[in-house]
Order: sequence, then structure tokens, then C-alpha cells
Amino acid sequence: VYKVTWDAVSAERGGYPHFMLKEIHEQPKAVRDTLRGRIAEDFSRVQLDELNLDDAFMKAVDRIHIIACGTSWHAGLVGKAVIESYARIPVDVEIASEYRYRRPLFTPNTLVIVISQSGETADTLAALREVKRQGRRVLAITNVVGSSAEREADDVIITWAGPEIAVASTKAYTTQLIALYLLGIKMAHVRGEIGDDKVRELLKGLEDLPQATEQVLDTAPQLERFAQRYVDTMDTFFIGRSLDYSVAMEGALKLKEISYIHAEAYAAGELKHGTLALITEGVPVIALATQPDLYEKTVSNIVEVKARGAFVLGMTWIGNEDLEKTVDEVIYLPKTLPELAPILAVIPLQLLAYYAAVARGNDVDKPRNLAKSVTVE
Amino acid sequence: VYKVTWDAVSAERGGYPHFMLKEIHEQPKAVRDTLRGRIAEDFSRVQLDELNLDDAFMKAVDRIHIIACGTSWHAGLVGKAVIESYARIPVDVEIASEYRYRRPLFTPNTLVIVISQSGETADTLAALREVKRQGRRVLAITNVVGSSAEREADDVIITWAGPEIAVASTKAYTTQLIALYLLGIKMAHVRGEIGDDKVRELLKGLEDLPQATEQVLDTAPQLERFAQRYVDTMDTFFIGRSLDYSVAMEGALKLKEISYIHAEAYAAGELKHGTLALITEGVPVIALATQPDLYEKTVSNIVEVKARGAFVLGMTWIGNEDLEKTVDEVIYLPKTLPELAPILAVIPLQLLAYYAAVARGNDVDKPRNLAKSVTVE
Repeated sequence: VYKVTWDAVSAERGGYPHFMLKEIHEQPKAVRDTLRGRIAEDFSRVQLDELNLDDAFMKAVDRIHIIACGTSWHAGLVGKAVIESYARIPVDVEIASEYRYRRPLFTPNTLVIVISQSGETADTLAALREVKRQGRRVLAITNVVGSSAEREADDVIITWAGPEIAVASTKAYTTQLIALYLLGIKMAHVRGEIGDDKVRELLKGLEDLPQATEQVLDTAPQLERFAQRYVDTMDTFFIGRSLDYSVAMEGALKLKEISYIHAEAYAAGELKHGTLALITEGVPVIALATQPDLYEKTVSNIVEVKARGAFVLGMTWIGNEDLEKTVDEVIYLPKTLPELAPILAVIPLQLLAYYAAVARGNDVDKPRNLAKSVTVE
Repeated sequence: VYKVTWDAVSAERGGYPHFMLKEIHEQPKAVRDTLRGRIAEDFSRVQLDELNLDDAFMKAVDRIHIIACGTSWHAGLVGKAVIESYARIPVDVEIASEYRYRRPLFTPNTLVIVISQSGETADTLAALREVKRQGRRVLAITNVVGSSAEREADDVIITWAGPEIAVASTKAYTTQLIALYLLGIKMAHVRGEIGDDKVRELLKGLEDLPQATEQVLDTAPQLERFAQRYVDTMDTFFIGRSLDYSVAMEGALKLKEISYIHAEAYAAGELKHGTLALITEGVPVIALATQPDLYEKTVSNIVEVKARGAFVLGMTWIGNEDLEKTVDEVIYLPKTLPELAPILAVIPLQLLAYYAAVARGNDVDKPRNLAKSVTVE
């Protein structure tokens, strides 16, 4: 008997045991593809020539609503921080299933941004349609050309992540961040809130990211060991401040989705207002400390959880060995501009979720109860 | 030997086994005291005569930042919904430990509201001081006359909850909500966003609350039975939409703080974007369905968790027996205006946390790792 060992699915997976792991490893390419052609060669400006939004409108925008669900909503939280700090436009980030049943407050020049990997997420699309019906301008960030969101929005930024098969989103998230950075920098530049030097600095920082994401993938064996050691854990907490808090939320969601560990993210400074009661001997805490200006404040919160016996996996930039004094184990990220750190910081968290799910024998690519694109309410 | 059975502490507790239970039961009085003198006898207007804010400023406010921590932050979330829907002023609700390390965006007429039971919460005070330094106007909602927040703010609304001794806040929360309702209604009225009839309806609704809160306390035995049955549970989820979601967050925090059960709240429509993976046979889910206009949408989310085997304790208004078709057990709340339901809905959740902590033998009034007023960062 001749046995066919070649397997179509495994070929599609490019030799990886799961689509999720393949997609995690595709992030350097996905980031590069999403940046391609969108940064001027001399780093003088963002080129988002596909946008119909003209400079006059970009200058006039006085409010932004970002509407999304799940992982895309987490990307929106980073987008808010980026747009507010660069472009100085106030941003509300709203869960689509909440937003659509409210009477949102609009200013005369509110820009609505919807984010959806598939472009078909039911609640997000419903919000898009309701907003359009009211005559508002909508910009969509989506991964699927020809999707409903892509067709119905006034402006579109495509994330060139390529097809994402695993239910747990990875490369869609990092490329959504790229889209939001590009948009935030462009708006800030047009509005004169940041100068040419800062634009150049940021765009060079973005250009370096594909290489840096490649480097972060080398943390995989460390995360695999950690996941195996904590295979029986029932609860895990993710803490951080500012941008680190947004990334912590995405890390907690990944872990929940595929490992079924009850993970929860907390603003590090908020722990003492309740959740600290859940921190006892041996509870794993993932502590993100990638922002130099908040580093000491975050360390003081890490000290609090260590004092209650938590096992802390810290994350900081290469060279900052100081963190080893406080935590049990450190993940080092390549140096980047602090504001771009989320794109690097999320990757070890994706790997942690992946290896935890594998260690527990779960169906990584198709976790129980969940669908890839939520096209129902 | 003559034995002194009288005990000073138990006398202070008024015969209750714990301060927390006493304080839960003091809510009808606390709500009444906080309303006293603040509603015109003919229900024609809110009387917050202690405020220095004049009508001209109330009309000019174009943005509100609410800054708080923990339970007070959850009160702020309800405040946002109330102020946005009545007064049509956009509100940002910010965690104080996050807000203070950012460069917040101010409009010319931004009003900052800080909420702190003790008036001494370190992060909230630091934010208050930074905002004042920038020449902004700050209104404080606090329970303690003579506290730092009370002395340093431009305007103050005192919540007349009386001393709160238990670490887990109960009557402070409900009276903070009262303060926010009064403020929201007043601003809406002054700005002409709601008319005299609506003002009268809302103020009559508020006036009925002490009686209704009294009635809700009768659910205690039902919650006690539920807590005893689920004494060994490790995880509990709270779901709801809109105002119910904000109350769900407070319910989850209470349960965490004193029972040490890992509880988490989710916007009901967001469950399917990840957390549904954690819902398996027998997991308790507390489902709030107090808002008639969102009732059917919430029920459809309850059906999803039931399909995964969750044991669902639902909460809805008296007379809506329809919910019994979907959930395992129902808590009925006295009828009130839907927008005032949070004040009633939170009480069974406080009772659930209390009885769960007692059933587990925890130190209810002084949970591990937590302090009453967080006067450190």
C-alpha cells in the first residue's frame, strides 16, 4: 500500500502545527506589507494616498469615534492613545454592540473609524450603517478587500495581513496597529501638532518594526517553557499602565480564547482597588513594563503583587536589567520608540497563549464556543 | 461571675454580624439622606444650592472628565451614561492612576469631576491637584466633609452615606449615583435638553428610590441560598448591556474583593468575541436585564451562555416573568424608571458577594490585601 503522507492542510500551514503559530510568525511580513508604499522614501511624510479625506477635513476633525469588537477593539485602544497624543484629537473607543444601541454624541466634524478584520462583524457593520445613515463620514480599517466594511465606508485602510485562519487573531491585530499609527501620524502632521523631525523619527521607527518583530519571535522557547510550567494554572493576571494596559487586555483575551485560563488585565495602578485580593501564592502575573516614563510606577505595582506571592513574568526593553531585581523572569523586547512598543509586546503574549493551549491539549485553531468572524449579533 | 455580654463593636454594628451587611441595609436611609433638601417640593427642579457653578457655566460646559478609582470609577460609568443621555455633554470616565500620567485633552470649558468616598484616595487627589494647577474647575463627589478632596475642589456634592467601615464599598456607591443623577438632571434642565415634565418624572423616580431599595433588601434570603449553593465556584461572570454592564462591573468587583472568586463583567454582546470560551457546564453567570429597550438583545446573549451549560441567575423588573423561560433563577427588582435601575440592581449583587464571602469563611469587613482608603499610589 502506498501511503500519501502529503497533507493539503499541513501544506497550507507551511509546516507549522497550527495556523495560529504560522500566523504569529507571519507578522514580520504582514507588518512590512502593511507599511509598503505608505511611507515616503525620505521619511518626510505618510502616504495614505488611498484616502479620500483631504487635509481640510483632517484639520477640521474635532472628535473621533472608534468602533470595534474583541481584538479590533483592543487595537482601537492603542489607536486612541496614539491619535490623542500625536494629533491631539479626543477619541472615544466603543464596543460596537454597546455603541449601536445608544444615541452617540456627535460634534460637527466627528470622524468615525470602524475596525474589523473580516469587514463582516455584525455589530460593527450595524454601527457603520447607522452612522452612515446619519450622514457621518466613516473610515474602515479591514483586512478583506471586497468585504462589506470595505465597500460601505467612505475611506478604507487595508491591512495587508493576508488570510487569517486561526480564530484567535494575531497578525490582524498588529497590522491594525500599523494602520492606526500611520493614520495618527498623518493627521498629527497635517494639523501641525508634530513637526517634520518627529514625523521622520516615527516613520523610521515604523520602518524598523518588521526586523524587530522577527527578533521578538526568538522569545518563543522561553514562553513555551513558561506555559508548560503553568499548565495547571486556573487564573492569570496581566498588568500594565497606559499603552501596556491596552496590550495587557489583548494578552488576556488571547489566553482566555484558546487556553481557557481565566485571564484578566488590570491597569497596574488599579489593582489595589480590589483585584489584589485575588493575588495569592503562585498566581502567575504577566507585568508589562515597556514604557520608560512609567517604569518606576509599574515596578512599584509589581512589588505589591510579589509581596502576595505572585510568580511574575516581566516584560521590558533590552538593556533594562533592573527589572530582574523585582520579577521572577524577564522577557526582553528589542528597543523601539516607546509608543511603538505595543506591536512588539503583544507577540510574546500571543506565543504564551499559543503554548498554553497546546500544553493543555486544546484545539488551538478552533477554540470551543467561538467563531472566526462573528457575523451574528 | 457576672459576664458582660455587651460588646462595643457589635453595638456599633447595630446587631449585624458585619459592617458590610449593616451598610448594605443602611442604603435606604443613605439614599434618603443624600436626596434630602436637593429636590424641590413640587419636583420642579434639582436644588444643589451648595454648588458655585452658575447656570452660565453649566450651559457652557462642552466636555466632562470623571476621574476616580475602583467602585467610584464604576459609579462614574453610570454618571457618564446619565450625563450624556440627559445633558448631551460628552463624558470621559478615567481611572485616576492612568489619567494622572497622561496629557489629557481639554476643551475651553471642560468640567472635571472627581469621585472618592474618603476624599483621600491618593491617585484621585493627585489628579485633582494636577488639574487644578492647570487652572481647571473641579467638582468633587465625596462622603467625607473636611477631606482633602472636599477642601480642595471648587465645588462639592457631599454624599450623606454616613461612615463606611467595611472595605467593600456599598452605600457610598449608591449615594454617589444619587449625586450624579442630581447633577446630570440639573445640567440637562439648565441647558434645556430636558423639559419640566421629564424633570418631574425623574425627580419623582428618585424620591421613590429609598422605598424601592428597602424592598430590594428582601431578596437577601434568595441571594444567601444562591451563594451557599455556589460556595465552591472559582469563576463567575456578570453580563449586561448599557447601564446593566456598568452595574455588572461593580458586582464583579464586590465578589472579587471579599469572596476571592475570580469574577469578571462583560458587555453581553461582547462575550462571543472571546470570553464565551470560558463558559462551560455549571459556570454561574449573573445576567442583568433591567433595561426594557435592550431586553431582547440581552436575552439572546443569555441563550448563548445557557447553550454552553451556564447556570444563570437573571435580574429583571417585577412583572417580567418572561425571563424565567430562559434563566435558572430570577431576581425581581421593584419597578422604577429604567435609567434609575442601577441603584436597585447593585443591591442584590452586594448581597451575593456578602453571602459568598460568609459561606467561604472570609473576613468580610477586612478582605486580604486590601485597605479601606487607598492613600498610597
